[in-house]
Amino acid sequence: MTEEQVRAWDRHHVFHSWSAQDEIAPLPIASARGSTFTDYSGKTYLDFSSQLVYTNLGHQHPRLVSALQRQAEKLATIAPGFANDARAELAHDIAEIAPEGMDYVFFTNGGADANEYAIRLAQQVTGRAKVLSAYRSYHGATGTMIGVSGDPRRWGAERGGHTGAESRHFFGPYLYRSAFWSQTPEEETQRALQHLENLIVLEGPETIAAIILESVVGTNGILVPPPGYLPGVRELCDRYGICYIADEVMAGFGRTGQWFGFENFGVAPDLITFAKGVNSGYVPLGGVVMRSEFRDFFAHRPFPGGLTYSGHPLACAVGVESMRVFREEGVLEHVRDLEERVMRPGLAECAKRHEGIGEFRGLGLFWAVELVRDRDTREPLVPFCATGEEKKPMAELAAACHARGLWPVAVDNRLHLTPPLTISEEELTRGLDILDDALSACGL
Amino acid sequence: MTEEQVRAWDRHHVFHSWSAQDEIAPLPIASARGSTFTDYSGKTYLDFSSQLVYTNLGHQHPRLVSALQRQAEKLATIAPGFANDARAELAHDIAEIAPEGMDYVFFTNGGADANEYAIRLAQQVTGRAKVLSAYRSYHGATGTMIGVSGDPRRWGAERGGHTGAESRHFFGPYLYRSAFWSQTPEEETQRALQHLENLIVLEGPETIAAIILESVVGTNGILVPPPGYLPGVRELCDRYGICYIADEVMAGFGRTGQWFGFENFGVAPDLITFAKGVNSGYVPLGGVVMRSEFRDFFAHRPFPGGLTYSGHPLACAVGVESMRVFREEGVLEHVRDLEERVMRPGLAECAKRHEGIGEFRGLGLFWAVELVRDRDTREPLVPFCATGEEKKPMAELAAACHARGLWPVAVDNRLHLTPPLTISEEELTRGLDILDDALSACGL
Repeated sequence: MTEEQVRAWDRHHVFHSWSAQDEIAPLPIASARGSTFTDYSGKTYLDFSSQLVYTNLGHQHPRLVSALQRQAEKLATIAPGFANDARAELAHDIAEIAPEGMDYVFFTNGGADANEYAIRLAQQVTGRAKVLSAYRSYHGATGTMIGVSGDPRRWGAERGGHTGAESRHFFGPYLYRSAFWSQTPEEETQRALQHLENLIVLEGPETIAAIILESVVGTNGILVPPPGYLPGVRELCDRYGICYIADEVMAGFGRTGQWFGFENFGVAPDLITFAKGVNSGYVPLGGVVMRSEFRDFFAHRPFPGGLTYSGHPLACAVGVESMRVFREEGVLEHVRDLEERVMRPGLAECAKRHEGIGEFRGLGLFWAVELVRDRDTREPLVPFCATGEEKKPMAELAAACHARGLWPVAVDNRLHLTPPLTISEEELTRGLDILDDALSACGL
Repeated sequence: MTEEQVRAWDRHHVFHSWSAQDEIAPLPIASARGSTFTDYSGKTYLDFSSQLVYTNLGHQHPRLVSALQRQAEKLATIAPGFANDARAELAHDIAEIAPEGMDYVFFTNGGADANEYAIRLAQQVTGRAKVLSAYRSYHGATGTMIGVSGDPRRWGAERGGHTGAESRHFFGPYLYRSAFWSQTPEEETQRALQHLENLIVLEGPETIAAIILESVVGTNGILVPPPGYLPGVRELCDRYGICYIADEVMAGFGRTGQWFGFENFGVAPDLITFAKGVNSGYVPLGGVVMRSEFRDFFAHRPFPGGLTYSGHPLACAVGVESMRVFREEGVLEHVRDLEERVMRPGLAECAKRHEGIGEFRGLGLFWAVELVRDRDTREPLVPFCATGEEKKPMAELAAACHARGLWPVAVDNRLHLTPPLTISEEELTRGLDILDDALSACGL
């Protein structure tokens, strides 16, 4: 197909996620390899998005492609009611990297349904209905999950009559724009925990099934929790008999330099949800890892949930190979190394040269640069949920990056920098140089 | 991996859909081809289930496997925000077989999320919240969908605190066990429509966003609607400004001998949901086909919904090739031919010889055989939602089939016969012979 044909059929037949359909012009991509993708004109972009933060091992990794092709040849699919080697092996391998006692995996098709079923499990086991989650969070867009998400994308569904009946939201830590008038990380942790406990107490602890938290908040700002916050949440969950669900859909599988984001903070949740990085999204896959007590609760009563493609062999085979690549190519070590030697110092340099950078923050290869009009007032470069003309300064910055062959993602007043974990030092350095140049070009 | 290893890791690490985990012993499958699959002992089964009614073109179809491998080589994945040839082509091809004016496709990962987003679309466009669906229906197991499903599997979630806030259920037509004291199909149609209208009027038409209906009810009995029913539903939807969602997840893509099940009844819905047969489940894929008015509603306002793997290139490439195979191998014609010459007469013969068959019904290669203790009273062979010992007669019948190398699916007091659409006449005949023999062995 020609570029024109792709554009025409896309425009006339594909309905796009989250978009005003007449106001987008999706770029047709012809090919991709490693940390880059290429459009039909032959222009190549450094992929600092990992698409939607999921191609953790990069594009067209030869070992993943080959595992995919081998499993296709062997057995593309089998129903979840049967046992299957690829499925069993990936469940085993994931249990191995999960905290002690988290031995079982329920596979889904992606992150939203992973969170749906984690909540189902928590509700079943506790006999409670409510779910607590943070403002500035995203947990998926199916009915339950869009209500749980504390992201403005929820408002659209709510305007359409969606109620999010079981959801209650609290404020999480975000020192740069603290909801608690804090001055230090310690204060932010202490106050955020006090706020969460106040809310638990007044919602009624015995009505709350679960607290769900991205271990590092993703799309809503790449917010790294301050020291002590996640352990404090764990303690509140223990005290009030609430399940702690760690949403690792974006943070998991190496993004932060550890298998799971929560490992950076010395805690273990009751349920872990994952997707994306588990197999770099080469085949849709998600899942829930659970403490064995959850599995045992359903030893002699049926679990009320399931799906046709649970534990899809093709998806699982790529997952198995992906975990081998992580180990054999030392991907976690590579991420930590690049973070320390390139990303963190590179952004520090960049911030020195550009007054428009209010804060940069992150972990591993999971970074945000927050753009401001004024460093002192911290006024964001574009307002929260900007539309139309208001968005222009950020749209221009993104366009300046794209023009120079760098593809980060712009969200609100932030650029998110989340390259594949296999990116080379040269590519990462080059990407940061382009960013520096684009900031200058935009006068930031 | 050995069979023992697969069994051990499955048991110790895989959490299974819908199951009491200690009461199942999933059979490890080693390979599959065409209409058969084979376990580790080398025993081969005729697959009369198409797994969960999704391998419409059979196992390991060489053209689908090869399309999958080619796309893996070319571009395994790209985010939904870009344009992609495989995605655009499949959307185009689906629009081509959909009714006039249904030109846009929103892709999802499976049937549950297809239904989630169809409901989201209906709620957005109507500004109404409620969804009407039939008892004896299944529409998925995510939060919203398990509430919408009129299937006992819903009860488990509801016992865990799930409310299904937006759902209201009505009775659909099912002449063999009529909820309306009908004697004839005409009476069943007329009364079922009257019942539905009564319910609409008393729920408040202006509060109802959508009616969602499986065009032929699947897991809940393979219930073929009597003549006039679906057109009557269409008319009620038009009269009251309600969106008509046709759930074609199981019935679609040839199962009934037409591309979509509703084509058998001369109607066109407002939204079509699909999954399963679209690409025989070789890669998870689902979607919503919508009338262009729905797309245009979101021309200048963002659609509040989306997912990471929307329009996954690998899944779409297999879909494109699958539709070519349907056309070039004359699959729809083959299904209609086998229905008329083999399935329908074969089951009629079988019913003559076995008093235990109360009714057989279906369309295309989508059939149920309802087993009864007494043809006059129609008392089911096992009670609705039987557990433990009560289930034994059906478990024994299923086991008798399995022992003889036939794999149908037993649901309540029914055997569902849903082989791949590419099954040969010889295989279909052989399967029906095995069924006949198994019924005799069980004294039915």
